[in-house]
Amino acid sequence: MTTGQTGQERTTGTLYLVPTPLDFGIRNSTEPDAGLSGVVGWLPHETVSVASRLTHWISENAKSTRAFLKRVAIDAPLALPLQEQWIVELPRQAHKKGDHVASPELEQQARALLAPALQGHDMGLVSEAGMPAVADPGSSVVRAAHALDIPVTPLVGPVSLMLALAASGLNGQQFAFAGYLPQDGEQRSRRLQELESMSQRTGQTQILIETPYRNAAVLKALMQHLRPQTRLAVSLGLGLPQQVTRSETVRQWRERPEPAAGLPMDLPAIFLFGAN
Amino acid sequence: MTTGQTGQERTTGTLYLVPTPLDFGIRNSTEPDAGLSGVVGWLPHETVSVASRLTHWISENAKSTRAFLKRVAIDAPLALPLQEQWIVELPRQAHKKGDHVASPELEQQARALLAPALQGHDMGLVSEAGMPAVADPGSSVVRAAHALDIPVTPLVGPVSLMLALAASGLNGQQFAFAGYLPQDGEQRSRRLQELESMSQRTGQTQILIETPYRNAAVLKALMQHLRPQTRLAVSLGLGLPQQVTRSETVRQWRERPEPAAGLPMDLPAIFLFGAN
Repeated sequence: MTTGQTGQERTTGTLYLVPTPLDFGIRNSTEPDAGLSGVVGWLPHETVSVASRLTHWISENAKSTRAFLKRVAIDAPLALPLQEQWIVELPRQAHKKGDHVASPELEQQARALLAPALQGHDMGLVSEAGMPAVADPGSSVVRAAHALDIPVTPLVGPVSLMLALAASGLNGQQFAFAGYLPQDGEQRSRRLQELESMSQRTGQTQILIETPYRNAAVLKALMQHLRPQTRLAVSLGLGLPQQVTRSETVRQWRERPEPAAGLPMDLPAIFLFGAN
Repeated sequence: MTTGQTGQERTTGTLYLVPTPLDFGIRNSTEPDAGLSGVVGWLPHETVSVASRLTHWISENAKSTRAFLKRVAIDAPLALPLQEQWIVELPRQAHKKGDHVASPELEQQARALLAPALQGHDMGLVSEAGMPAVADPGSSVVRAAHALDIPVTPLVGPVSLMLALAASGLNGQQFAFAGYLPQDGEQRSRRLQELESMSQRTGQTQILIETPYRNAAVLKALMQHLRPQTRLAVSLGLGLPQQVTRSETVRQWRERPEPAAGLPMDLPAIFLFGAN
């Protein structure tokens, strides 16, 4: 229900939402442990300090969480050695379909994961990269924490959607995150028209994500279906040295002989557009 | 157009989007300089390091920017003394009405501010608190940078809207930021019904902000107009030691004899709800 310190009689732990750097799964997957660096470059001290003293984790992926803690340990000694940390993964349902749609079964599973917090342990919720429960699973655990009266404290770290929004120059006073586009061509074009007319009516910036191997197809679809005067921005590789953001009208995108030239299209992308 | 390193012939500077801690204007306004602390607790090293070496700033408020740089200097020596830093404020129009709606006049003013970048200086864009151009002015300068082919690099820092979203347990796979509610009672209730039916149809979480002195009125309106089964969350004082998030159904909120009891209603608030 209410989170925060309510008095001296509180005995439950706190659920911390722990963001991770955005370079996970990219540097590490190509060259494991090569150039393994700490995390203070990308996370504030407060976040690193809390992460280093936690010993109980709920994780989207246990392997990534161990890799994250290995990097945290470079900057701050862990309260417990890696092998002794308690790490459980989110329920399968949370991975497959997302866990934002409440179901009694999921709710029960999420509550069970929080048992250590009820026993007084502070816990960390962590996703693969970035902020847990934002464009990532984890919200079922947060809802369960509120239901169990476990305080929830979000920690500061990178949120790629907002880095991209700021860098696009698009409207940051009204915006919506729409997730992934449908893969079917006809559904996709209908969905784009719907989002664009919403943007035209309200000034709302539309934010989309895609898995890297479909980046080129999505860029093509956006260029094809949006109106020439709509502003279209793409951020690629946020949090990586190669990061780049291009923001111009669809007309300008179309005038380029090779629109994707010079862009690292194999990196994680965020697409944004605004019609006004 | 395209931002990022495109080759050795680049001679323009980069526009960095520099986030600031969320405790600005709160701690500092009540007790100036009392307990002045550095920023590494709330900003990653990379952000602090870039901020300390910049000497040219475009700012929502020059006074706040000087206070920010004073705190940066505690953690990393500034490249130039505070008095010698070049700090200009955003055009008045950007403050008053927001600068997301393009106008030729505003565009021209924004371009003029970027003159140092065209001469090769890296520049910082900074708002009062949090991420510039996200629920804050600054987007006109970012658009101007793209038009002038000045690379735009967003830096990691706190974005209160996303901290609140993660802490709410509401849907983080579909969400919209709707800004402020209308102040007129009838318009406000119509707007809430519109947002709630959108949320019901699409699962989209609705995010709202308000100035602290209207927090109580907005909470009351939300409790009154939303459906009992809708989940309503409030985050107060994010980034401050007193921070607290409460997330429960409207029915549960209504069952409380004094719904605001135990909540620091005088602190900056973010309101979120989801009907599903």
